[in-house]
Amino acid sequence: MFDKLNVEDAQERIRPFVNATPVLTSSYLNDLTGKNLYFKCENFQKTGSFKARGALNAILKARSSGHVTGVIAHSGGNHGQAVAWAAKQIGVPCVVVSPSTTPKTKVDAMRDYGAEMVITEPTMTAMVETSARLAKERGYTFIDPMNDYDVMSGQGTVAKEFLEQVDGLEAVLIATGGGGLASGVAGYVKAQKPACKEQVDHLDAVLIATGGGGLASGVAGYVKAQKPACKDTVADGCRPLAVGDKCFDVLLRSAEHTVFPVTDEEILEAMKLILQRMKLVVEPSAALGLAAILKYKDALKDYHNIGLVLCGGNVDLTQNLGKHE
Amino acid sequence: MFDKLNVEDAQERIRPFVNATPVLTSSYLNDLTGKNLYFKCENFQKTGSFKARGALNAILKARSSGHVTGVIAHSGGNHGQAVAWAAKQIGVPCVVVSPSTTPKTKVDAMRDYGAEMVITEPTMTAMVETSARLAKERGYTFIDPMNDYDVMSGQGTVAKEFLEQVDGLEAVLIATGGGGLASGVAGYVKAQKPACKEQVDHLDAVLIATGGGGLASGVAGYVKAQKPACKDTVADGCRPLAVGDKCFDVLLRSAEHTVFPVTDEEILEAMKLILQRMKLVVEPSAALGLAAILKYKDALKDYHNIGLVLCGGNVDLTQNLGKHE
Repeated sequence: MFDKLNVEDAQERIRPFVNATPVLTSSYLNDLTGKNLYFKCENFQKTGSFKARGALNAILKARSSGHVTGVIAHSGGNHGQAVAWAAKQIGVPCVVVSPSTTPKTKVDAMRDYGAEMVITEPTMTAMVETSARLAKERGYTFIDPMNDYDVMSGQGTVAKEFLEQVDGLEAVLIATGGGGLASGVAGYVKAQKPACKEQVDHLDAVLIATGGGGLASGVAGYVKAQKPACKDTVADGCRPLAVGDKCFDVLLRSAEHTVFPVTDEEILEAMKLILQRMKLVVEPSAALGLAAILKYKDALKDYHNIGLVLCGGNVDLTQNLGKHE
Repeated sequence: MFDKLNVEDAQERIRPFVNATPVLTSSYLNDLTGKNLYFKCENFQKTGSFKARGALNAILKARSSGHVTGVIAHSGGNHGQAVAWAAKQIGVPCVVVSPSTTPKTKVDAMRDYGAEMVITEPTMTAMVETSARLAKERGYTFIDPMNDYDVMSGQGTVAKEFLEQVDGLEAVLIATGGGGLASGVAGYVKAQKPACKEQVDHLDAVLIATGGGGLASGVAGYVKAQKPACKDTVADGCRPLAVGDKCFDVLLRSAEHTVFPVTDEEILEAMKLILQRMKLVVEPSAALGLAAILKYKDALKDYHNIGLVLCGGNVDLTQNLGKHE
């Protein structure tokens, strides 16, 4: 199954277009948690999230195996921006199907990248049907938000870069919504283990944090139990109604089987620490890892050097700028 | 006069303690302005602002020329945090005199660094008199917020690092309040010019942006005219009631004599761009340079590669975190 992931090829393919994002640390947060935390800043990625990696890899890969006359995606958030941006990089037309609840700033951002915007009712059914119909009518290539090995491989480049940048990581803690980032990272790390001992020798675990309180623990329980609790989480990137089945398959074989659920309150507290102490604008989903570290001190006591992915920075903090101190 | 500034020695002295902050760019902002903008991220500096550099340099320099039994500063903001932090690094006691209007989070931050906090009425007179009296009673060393060559030299290390990091800068645009950063940077650049042609050959100008609308243009006019307009600017770092006379002297001889005033509205718009597009938390004072570039297109048309200093990130953006998109 892991041979369906190809992170090395993905990295070669997307490298000319994406940012090799920096890893930052905070002595304050290290003191607070008693650990060495390494933050991979995908909030500085093109389009403001890691999604640029997977979307671009999928489009370039599709083009390398046949003619791509256009691409289509459904998303009200980061995936839509990523596909619109990626299509612009290689000069193919793009349609993004977004729910009518999508903030105007995001619709504008996608349009600025050149996407044709199609607005539907805010249901998954409407979005899926509309994009399937349009893909068929126009002969465009559909780019899945996560449940696709090329998308996962693109997201896995986060892990490859991260391991090149930081020695001695013992665990990587990833927030998951649809599972694209978590499976790409976990699959890559697992595949490296036999061949590349020196690099990942200490890297025991890829851990998963999720939004929504009171979830069943464990990856298996996660998929079944999370959904009612998750869909209203403040972490909008973690709201998908299911982990993709291909992603789940990779996760089950490569990530630790313990899941660390955190509540909205805990997410916002962690986000505040990242804003105040690291001076980084991150979206709520990017704060799940830190929230889990603050909450699950006992369960995480054996991990000292932990990598966290600040998965994106697309959040509107500016509504009340006039009210700063 | 420039021999009173010694940025090289300051850099050697403070290097083990401070961050060599990164320089970031934004293709969006480059497209928007038609320039190459380089942002020096002092929001990532220890204590969240460049002030850590000058405060530490002044304390270490004082200690090298005599016994320092303690230090004292008056400030409701970044300088107070910087002095408290610097005193902690070298293990001397610290008193910070703050006005009663200082936000509790800032008072707490200074106390966390180990400072003894003395709260006065919110007038400059009360703060100056209280700190002078306490300095005398205790025999502590007073650390000026800007009007001191060692403080200016410490701030000047921003310029030294910046020129080492970026080739071909044609101008550096600095926001000024009390003038410590602007004079340190301008003095350093001016002093390098004859000896170090290759590094600063293209660097024609150190430019100054200020808060408060409708100011007289020109450095000379600036000092006299700015104050009524400036004291309520949203850019709290730019509110000091006068540029220090020593700073002014350096500025007059080394910076361009044109000042670029920007309004609160323009500052907040630029701050929003930095938050949204660069994913960086900056305080309003850090946005003045970008605001000036957006406003004074014609006056700045000959400068293509411009350096900007994101002077600090100490702002409370988190009051309304629950209201994100």
